[in-house]
Parts: sequence; structure tokens; C-alpha cells
Amino acid sequence: MSHQPKPSVFPASIYKYQTGELVQSPDLLAVEEPLEIQLNFIANDEITERKVSVTMRTPGHDFELATGFLFSEGLIKSPKDIIRIRHCESMKKPEERGNVVKVTLRPHVKVDLQRLERQFYTNSSCGVCGKTSIEAIQLTGCPNLPIDAPIITADILLGLPTSLRNQQMVFEHTGGLHAAALFDNKGHLLAMREDVGRHNAMDKLVGSQLDNAEVFHRSIALLSGRLSFELVQKALTAEIPVVAAVGAPSSLAVQLAQSYGMTLVGFLRNERFNVYTHPTRIQM
Amino acid sequence: MSHQPKPSVFPASIYKYQTGELVQSPDLLAVEEPLEIQLNFIANDEITERKVSVTMRTPGHDFELATGFLFSEGLIKSPKDIIRIRHCESMKKPEERGNVVKVTLRPHVKVDLQRLERQFYTNSSCGVCGKTSIEAIQLTGCPNLPIDAPIITADILLGLPTSLRNQQMVFEHTGGLHAAALFDNKGHLLAMREDVGRHNAMDKLVGSQLDNAEVFHRSIALLSGRLSFELVQKALTAEIPVVAAVGAPSSLAVQLAQSYGMTLVGFLRNERFNVYTHPTRIQM
Repeated sequence: MSHQPKPSVFPASIYKYQTGELVQSPDLLAVEEPLEIQLNFIANDEITERKVSVTMRTPGHDFELATGFLFSEGLIKSPKDIIRIRHCESMKKPEERGNVVKVTLRPHVKVDLQRLERQFYTNSSCGVCGKTSIEAIQLTGCPNLPIDAPIITADILLGLPTSLRNQQMVFEHTGGLHAAALFDNKGHLLAMREDVGRHNAMDKLVGSQLDNAEVFHRSIALLSGRLSFELVQKALTAEIPVVAAVGAPSSLAVQLAQSYGMTLVGFLRNERFNVYTHPTRIQM
Repeated sequence: MSHQPKPSVFPASIYKYQTGELVQSPDLLAVEEPLEIQLNFIANDEITERKVSVTMRTPGHDFELATGFLFSEGLIKSPKDIIRIRHCESMKKPEERGNVVKVTLRPHVKVDLQRLERQFYTNSSCGVCGKTSIEAIQLTGCPNLPIDAPIITADILLGLPTSLRNQQMVFEHTGGLHAAALFDNKGHLLAMREDVGRHNAMDKLVGSQLDNAEVFHRSIALLSGRLSFELVQKALTAEIPVVAAVGAPSSLAVQLAQSYGMTLVGFLRNERFNVYTHPTRIQM
């Protein structure tokens, strides 16, 4: 049994304030709905099923979201670890259809059950300070990025936000979505994903390119909002060397990028930007 | 043993792009560090300790954050349920000090252990669709807000973002923080809290006023970013009748506000705003 994909925008009747009065007017909202990710795998010679995550996301690219999430959490090393991915069709309520993704792993893939029991990295081995959060990333097998020659010019970097906005179709309609995009070093857009949650937009982006993961190693990621520790961690797992954002980075995002050799750019807008770490990858 | 409060901003040396070159320059970053909330309570006649949450937050107002979080999750009904709240002093690593808050509940307070085991509302009884997410809120004892006479004029509403910006001191320095503020219906600021996480800013704001919770019932909350389901849920638990944001609301935020009688305002900036639900509380 198949079903219609869930829409990303939702029509609503709202009231716009205009010159002293409220005028009823049609509008489009960015959809926010829960997505549950279920994992099927073999542990102790038995087929095991576990719910690994529920996130509030914008429907669309759900399989990429699930794949990107599992990858950035270290539960899979490659999309080849996945034997099957599909929406669960046996939901009792029709509204729930399309909100559960079932991922079946290949028999050889080892899943750390203890890791699954914990609430992932914020709640696991990372301890409770910035330093141990950063050290914990290392435990997931994240490599240091090679610091190499410049890979993008300042001029091309300055043009990326305009390219992103031109592609942000849903944002155009609703003003309500975060975007994450991947560019090559000539400024060509390789992929763009949107979501009400910025971590989901990043998971979708990473999930969309994992079949060809070496593309990450020479690309630039651009995020529409601010840069948190979690977003830098996701980019690092994908080995993206340059991450830029329209907004500000947090202290821990900067420290993580510094530690692992990532070039972090913030406030990329209005013909200016700040470089927080490893400026050698940007050519003047 | 006491310790210094953790700073909210962190000095860094960055590179600013200026007229074709990168110029090294001092800067301030918004601090992001994990905060663990531990709960001590009596269950089955035994003193029980549980870790209930780890969130990446900006240090400052940690006790308000913990109190607001426990309240919005339905684990406490009032700050009177708390007998003691303090930073854990027995951390092994000095960097971890100040990142763990221990909350001890009064002996009579019943804690739903099953609820604690689950990953709170996104992962609990809410099912996996918008409709069941909204129904689940009802189960936590959230009342419908009384739809009453206008409580704020459009003119006062239009002035709130400027008042918020004038107060946002850390934002001023770093550009990196979300803010949540509470105003009375004359437009006077009652409280404002900031954080790298917008849900944390809201928890801090709610936690700051819980000792005098009836103030919420005649106030307006203003948020610096976008409005998600989670933020509306937190405002609803505090029974705040009007919630406004500088950014857009999601579909589920609007549906939740509609269902429980909350007035939801979005895009409040540049002398305009949209009303998504229950416009009767705004006087033209």
C-alpha cells in the first residue's frame, strides 16, 4: 500500500495587520510534524527493532533525514550499511502514515546497543563540559580534516547567500524554514535542504550526498541560521572542510571547528563575513 | 565550596573580512555548554536520583532554566514542589563545575517514573502525528485559555520588538543568542532571558516568573526567532494568552495555539505583524 507524500507547506487563513486594521488573508505555513526513526538490526543473533529518535521535522526527504541522522550519530558508516528504508505502512491512524521511517541494516552491521539506550551524544560519554563534549567526538572516529591549500576565494564565498536564497523555495513561501546547502568551490549549488529544525536540514543535506561522500571533502556547507556545536559536529562527521553561516557561531562550535581543522565562517551576509578558525582555506 | 558563575560570553580572536582582506580582530562569542539536570525525589519510599535532561545552553540563570524545564514537562506543578536547587559541587573535572544542577523535590511530590524513562513529550504518549501531539498536551493537564476581552493594542504590540532589542545585552555583543521576553499590556518589559537554544530561553523566562505565576495570565511573550510547537507548548503550560514572535510560526504551532485558545502573532517587525489565531485579544 502506498500513500501520498506529506506536504511541506500548509494553507491557512490568517489576519495581516495593515494600516491600522486586521485583514483576513490566505497564507502558507511551514509544516512541522513528528518523524520517528526505527532501526531493524541483528544483535546477539536476534532480529532487533528499536525506536532511535523522534524529531519534529518538515515532511520531505525523510529517508535522507534518517540516513543523515544515523550517519552523524555514528550508527552507520555508509549508506551501504542500509539494506532497506521505507515508511511504515501499518500505522493505525491515517494521520500517522508517513511519519515513521523504518531502516533495516545489513546483517554484518554492529549496533552499539548501549549507545542506543543513551540519549546520544549530548547525554552519553561526552561528560558535561565543552572540553569533554569535544573529546567525545573523537571517540566516534571523526578524523581531523587535512589543512590544505585554499579551496574557495573570498569573492565566491560572498556570493553564496544569494545563491541559497534563490533556491529556497519553501522559505520564499513561508519564511519559516532553515536551509542547509552544499556548494562546490566555484560557487555552484550541489544540494539544498530545508526544515523547521536546523539540525534536520543538515541531516537531510548530508543524507542526500552520502552515496557519493567524497564530494563533501572539497565542498562548502552554508547554513541559513546560527552555528551550534551540534551542526559543526554533523558537518565534521561528513568531513566538510568549510562551514559558513549567515548567523553567529557559538563558543563551542568554534572550539570544535578549531580542534578538528575545520574552517568556520559566520555572519556571511551583506558583502562581509568573519572567519573564526583556519582561514588558510580562503583565498583573498 | 562555591565557584565562580560561568560566563555567558567568551572572548576570541577572529578574522574579519574587510575590503578584500582578512583582518585579525578581537570578538565575543555566545557561550554554549552542556547543562545536566538531576532530580532527587522519593519513589516507592526510597530516595531516587535521576538524570532528566542534558541541554546545550548558555550559562546563566541555570536554576530558572531547570525550574522552567521541569514545569513545562509537567514534572512539577509549582516552584513550591522544589525543596532545594543547587549546582553539583562534586564534579571531578573543574571544567564541569557549574554544568550540573541538582533539584530536590518535596517528599509529597509524585514523579511519574515511566514518564521520566521516556524522552519526554516528542517521544512519549504523543504518537507520531500532529493531531496526537496536540492531544497529548491535554493529558499533561494544560487548560484551555479563557478567550476574553482585548488585552493589548496593536500600537503597543508593534513597539515590543524595539523594547526587546534595547534589553538584549548579550545579543548586542555576540549576535548569537535567542531571546524570550515577557511584557505587560502597557508594553513594559517584565523579564527577558537569552540563550543559544530558543527552548532554553523560554524555560529560563518561565522559570524566572513561576513564583508569581499569575503574572503570566495577563502578559504577552515575545520571542526573537521562529515559533515551533515546543515553544507554544511551553507558553501554554504557563498559561500565557498572547505569544508573539519576530519570525514565522510552524503549522503545528498554529494548530496548537488554535486548539487551546492562545493568540499567536508572527512576523512582528518593521511596523507589521500577522495574527494566526484568536485575534480578539488585540485591539485595533
